[in-house]
Amino acid sequence: MTEHIQYDATRQVLVLLDQRKLPCHEEWFDCRTTEELIYALQTMVVRGAPAIGVTAAYGCHLIALEVAKETGSSGNWRQTLRDRLHLLKNARPTAVNLAWAVDRSVAAWDAQADLELAPLAALWLEMAIALHAEDLACCKSIGRFGGALLQDGDTVMTHCNAGALATAGYGTALGVIRGAIDQGKAIKVIANETRPFLQGARLTAWELHRDGIPVTIACDNACGLLMRRGMVDAVVVGADRIAANGDAVNKIGTYGVAVLAKQHGIPFYVAAPLSTIDRATPTGDHVPIEDRTPREVTHVGDVQICPDGVPVFNYAFDPTPAELIAGIVTERGVLTAPYADSITRVFAEAARDAAGIVDEME
Amino acid sequence: MTEHIQYDATRQVLVLLDQRKLPCHEEWFDCRTTEELIYALQTMVVRGAPAIGVTAAYGCHLIALEVAKETGSSGNWRQTLRDRLHLLKNARPTAVNLAWAVDRSVAAWDAQADLELAPLAALWLEMAIALHAEDLACCKSIGRFGGALLQDGDTVMTHCNAGALATAGYGTALGVIRGAIDQGKAIKVIANETRPFLQGARLTAWELHRDGIPVTIACDNACGLLMRRGMVDAVVVGADRIAANGDAVNKIGTYGVAVLAKQHGIPFYVAAPLSTIDRATPTGDHVPIEDRTPREVTHVGDVQICPDGVPVFNYAFDPTPAELIAGIVTERGVLTAPYADSITRVFAEAARDAAGIVDEME
Repeated sequence: MTEHIQYDATRQVLVLLDQRKLPCHEEWFDCRTTEELIYALQTMVVRGAPAIGVTAAYGCHLIALEVAKETGSSGNWRQTLRDRLHLLKNARPTAVNLAWAVDRSVAAWDAQADLELAPLAALWLEMAIALHAEDLACCKSIGRFGGALLQDGDTVMTHCNAGALATAGYGTALGVIRGAIDQGKAIKVIANETRPFLQGARLTAWELHRDGIPVTIACDNACGLLMRRGMVDAVVVGADRIAANGDAVNKIGTYGVAVLAKQHGIPFYVAAPLSTIDRATPTGDHVPIEDRTPREVTHVGDVQICPDGVPVFNYAFDPTPAELIAGIVTERGVLTAPYADSITRVFAEAARDAAGIVDEME
Repeated sequence: MTEHIQYDATRQVLVLLDQRKLPCHEEWFDCRTTEELIYALQTMVVRGAPAIGVTAAYGCHLIALEVAKETGSSGNWRQTLRDRLHLLKNARPTAVNLAWAVDRSVAAWDAQADLELAPLAALWLEMAIALHAEDLACCKSIGRFGGALLQDGDTVMTHCNAGALATAGYGTALGVIRGAIDQGKAIKVIANETRPFLQGARLTAWELHRDGIPVTIACDNACGLLMRRGMVDAVVVGADRIAANGDAVNKIGTYGVAVLAKQHGIPFYVAAPLSTIDRATPTGDHVPIEDRTPREVTHVGDVQICPDGVPVFNYAFDPTPAELIAGIVTERGVLTAPYADSITRVFAEAARDAAGIVDEME
């Protein structure tokens, strides 16, 4: 698949495949300003926790360029830049990767506080390019570990899109499926359509079909019947934020799929990079749940499906409690219950390895 | 609400509110021929088990008129009529009321096998009008019994449309809600939108809003989160067929709602007339599940939401096992587990009463 997040260095613009237009139209959206970045995030030109993180990383660079153009790297550029990064960080509330990517840029700046604007912008571009590459490598690693959990011939249900389009490429949940296929297993996929924004029907089906992976679309409502009829061997989903206890917050409806999977003895896996785990959030019920515009529910395209004057709920995410999760597939292996322990261990291990790398470098 | 099923005796036509056009347009659809009747049933101009039964009863009358016009009540009209009734009976497979209503007409004919075509058509019209009135009375009775199960201040979730539009009027599941309101209770409703055909968003929300009953639309995916947050006090749904053991087959997704309700200790009620109980079907898994056109999933109106070339599932119903059902609200009271026993009892009681009525009449 063509990369859906592309930095055009000549034009100094971030070019995003406009996911609102899929599956019928392939259009590209240019981001250059804070306003365009926030618009792209909020209207979901780009979505998916890791893809949001990568976009935000490039966003820091673009905002630095924007501020440079306006202030000429003189005057109060530091405050202006901080203010705009704050806006970017708060464009969407649920996925931890957005805040994480912005905070990472700010931490690098804080570490070299006297850096001028131009070298700061250059540093952030370098960091964004590195994050972009790391995220792809991370997905491939998730795919290797997760692929081993699936059996040859399995039909795997997934909810929403935790695919190439939600990451730098390859995907987390769909990375697990691609990983199994790369290991020589025949895998079929059931993509839940994922109302209201239809990421499953529009995006997951589109990218799998394009890669020649057999996929069938089901209404979210069909999940129970398909499981009852023995048509689902495993469920793999992504996550927008994983709490310290292993609760996973993901696209609305994931919780219901997990409860049904438990009811039918079907393993339910969450695939996500460690950057999605927010150890500062104790449980899934502590994660802020985004409440989006009613229009996503009341209309599909321009077709009105709700009567005028009737209110709607449009919560975008829900928490799935850790006890429903058979394993959390990360780039460092599959975490299992009790998650508070396995999460603590994997972060300690990552910290040791990072320290080791620093040691080696010194 | 204006009656959505109207027999126009002058024009000899069944006039149906076209439910495909709601909630934005109120258009009426004329049925006169076998072809028009089957089209109206299959494309869901009219839907909902009891409404399908009433339509089919009028349909027998209209088909008799149609055959009379073609054969002039001479020649082989009996075989032609039987063939067309067979087509009508098989227009849709899941709701038992369709077959039940046609069989009832045929039984009345068999009881007076030498009846000529004109008096037979007249008899069937009389029976259809009586069924229409009985169904309305039945819904009101369901409302009285079911209303008593709800508490003042309850928020009730419902799935699909088991309302006035699914019956002769008043509704079964929505009849329970109307019954509680008629008993002076304040009730709020959450209408699951009910993909793919969106009967909840389009029909339930429309008819409740029109009657001034507070209703909020939720994507089917929101069910788990809403229950987890304590926003649902009870669930009431209709049924298309109830098996002898109490399993209830209803709109796709109902099973998932029932599993989530159980998980959260929320009572899950099914409201349906006794005519929906098919004692010849041992369990819900024996009920044929209609597999409908992919287009209902791939498109919303004219908006395409799935990529070309990707297959879809479009099963229209699913079975909810009896153990998830807190009570089945019928016109003769609320049946409780074990349902095999309570169903046997209520049918014996109905048979005794019918015999008593015959005794009194003799």
